[in-house]
Amino acid sequence: MKKLINHPDYVVREELEGIALAHPDLVKVHFEPNFIYRADAPVRGKVALVSGGGSGHEPMHGGFVGVGMLDAACPGAVFTSPTPDQMLEAAKVVSSGKGVLFIVKNYTGDVMNFEMAADLAMAEGMEVQSVVIDDDVAVQNSLYTAGRRGVGTTVLAEKICGGAAETGYSLSQLADLCRKVNGWGRSMGMALTSCTVPHVGKPTFDLPEDQMEIGIGIHGEPGRTRLPLKSADEIVEMLMEPIVSDLPFKSGDDVLLFVNSMGGTPLIELYIVYRKAHRFAEQHGLRVVRNLIGPYITSLEMAGCSITLLKMDEELRRFWDAPVKTPALRWG
Amino acid sequence: MKKLINHPDYVVREELEGIALAHPDLVKVHFEPNFIYRADAPVRGKVALVSGGGSGHEPMHGGFVGVGMLDAACPGAVFTSPTPDQMLEAAKVVSSGKGVLFIVKNYTGDVMNFEMAADLAMAEGMEVQSVVIDDDVAVQNSLYTAGRRGVGTTVLAEKICGGAAETGYSLSQLADLCRKVNGWGRSMGMALTSCTVPHVGKPTFDLPEDQMEIGIGIHGEPGRTRLPLKSADEIVEMLMEPIVSDLPFKSGDDVLLFVNSMGGTPLIELYIVYRKAHRFAEQHGLRVVRNLIGPYITSLEMAGCSITLLKMDEELRRFWDAPVKTPALRWG
Repeated sequence: MKKLINHPDYVVREELEGIALAHPDLVKVHFEPNFIYRADAPVRGKVALVSGGGSGHEPMHGGFVGVGMLDAACPGAVFTSPTPDQMLEAAKVVSSGKGVLFIVKNYTGDVMNFEMAADLAMAEGMEVQSVVIDDDVAVQNSLYTAGRRGVGTTVLAEKICGGAAETGYSLSQLADLCRKVNGWGRSMGMALTSCTVPHVGKPTFDLPEDQMEIGIGIHGEPGRTRLPLKSADEIVEMLMEPIVSDLPFKSGDDVLLFVNSMGGTPLIELYIVYRKAHRFAEQHGLRVVRNLIGPYITSLEMAGCSITLLKMDEELRRFWDAPVKTPALRWG
Repeated sequence: MKKLINHPDYVVREELEGIALAHPDLVKVHFEPNFIYRADAPVRGKVALVSGGGSGHEPMHGGFVGVGMLDAACPGAVFTSPTPDQMLEAAKVVSSGKGVLFIVKNYTGDVMNFEMAADLAMAEGMEVQSVVIDDDVAVQNSLYTAGRRGVGTTVLAEKICGGAAETGYSLSQLADLCRKVNGWGRSMGMALTSCTVPHVGKPTFDLPEDQMEIGIGIHGEPGRTRLPLKSADEIVEMLMEPIVSDLPFKSGDDVLLFVNSMGGTPLIELYIVYRKAHRFAEQHGLRVVRNLIGPYITSLEMAGCSITLLKMDEELRRFWDAPVKTPALRWG
């Protein structure tokens, strides 16, 4: 296993120490239980957004904590759900009394633990709502999932809801907006290589030199099919067809096109993927009005990519464009 | 070779087409000769900054074109210098009559071709100055280099000079500033794995599973030494020692700490590297006042990292903080 780490036991702790040293202007890090939260939390008069999930998908979610996005993120061990006590403590620290929205990727452990945390937080008098993201069209059920997996749309939901929260959206308005984003987002990914979980020390799966996995999950869960390696354009078609065929897209729609690296795929390849995906969308009558290209929801050093399409309207566009200042996303 | 490409011959062209589709608000792409330039070029009253080099180091340099950074970037084939006609045509398109600064990484082909382009541009009546970046402390001469190689400080020089150019710095002031940044920046890199140049189709070098290369170049040029894999903290010490020992750092200095992914190393590992590098700097009396963490000057999908330290003063800090709006760097 070739990694820039000291010991598998310290990967998450030392990563968090690095984040704390790097971005004290944006975030603070709480240890035991572990969570990253806005340096200026709690933000008075604002609903607090809390997300989290297994580590290994960086910058998601810790890199999205800051002005205009999340108030807190709870990292679990690599590819392992965080625990309810992390979520509860994070909610307490960032809550300003206006309510807390949990944004949860659809994996069994995450859903269960965020539900438990919501119950505990409500028992302590906080108002909490949870929205589950399940945008992956690749498979209906999966290794860690009942229903579709939550992937790329999570990044977009956190940005858009974060923008809306800054303008004073109420908890129920934010939960509605988050469900709308989830309902309008569709994703699918693929892998050229496996990744290696530090504690395991060997690749999660074997993928021969001439093979690729279409529909891969962000923990290396099996996808739809394993095929001989094809050209970038053919791969993009294999990802875009199921995405565009799934509701809710129809000709004439405005969309955001998000081309994501699984971690080990360099930018030069992502732009080759973007080129075909953009053209594919436009050939299907979709107007690409916004985009995001880079490693945002990764699977350690896995080579591969995922594509997310999000139908956009005026509301989504406004909050996508709103200022954001986090370690991983910054503009406006 | 596992890559998201269509054919080695089309990698750069299709990447550029992707960039053109993705960022029409920020940049335009000129084909044959190939260069990326600011969508609003030429910018009246401003010195134009032009850089370039072999492709395969993305986002450098094309991702740094836009407000507050470069006016144009000329990409060569993968790991191959661009040609003088690219640089000349780019200079013509972005020149507003206030002069053109070429920022050149110290590789023999780049230096020679930018020199030729400067001569051609001056023959056409443009005022041109060139600054060569040679910040890599790993080796004195190298496979493609007389003198030290140009690496991470290039990114910082492009940002800082780009910020200064927006405020009306003259050509000679900008050339002085760029030389100052180069004189104050030091870098060193390491690799866990090789990368594969698309046209070659196999790894540039072999690196056994238990070995790493310290002092690697961004084209896979040999470094200082090949050693058994060590912990992240030990690796950081092996990079930071030569950097800090090299002039111009002294206790009490403010520095910018830049931890860069070679392309295949995920963010979770970069923060573990950052943690140790930040502490190492502070233990040596250096105050880390700014940082940059991510894949900015890469070597295709190579796993590994490089570290750059830049001594900062008020002038450098002001222009580092200045607004920037490019595909790869955005803030303010």
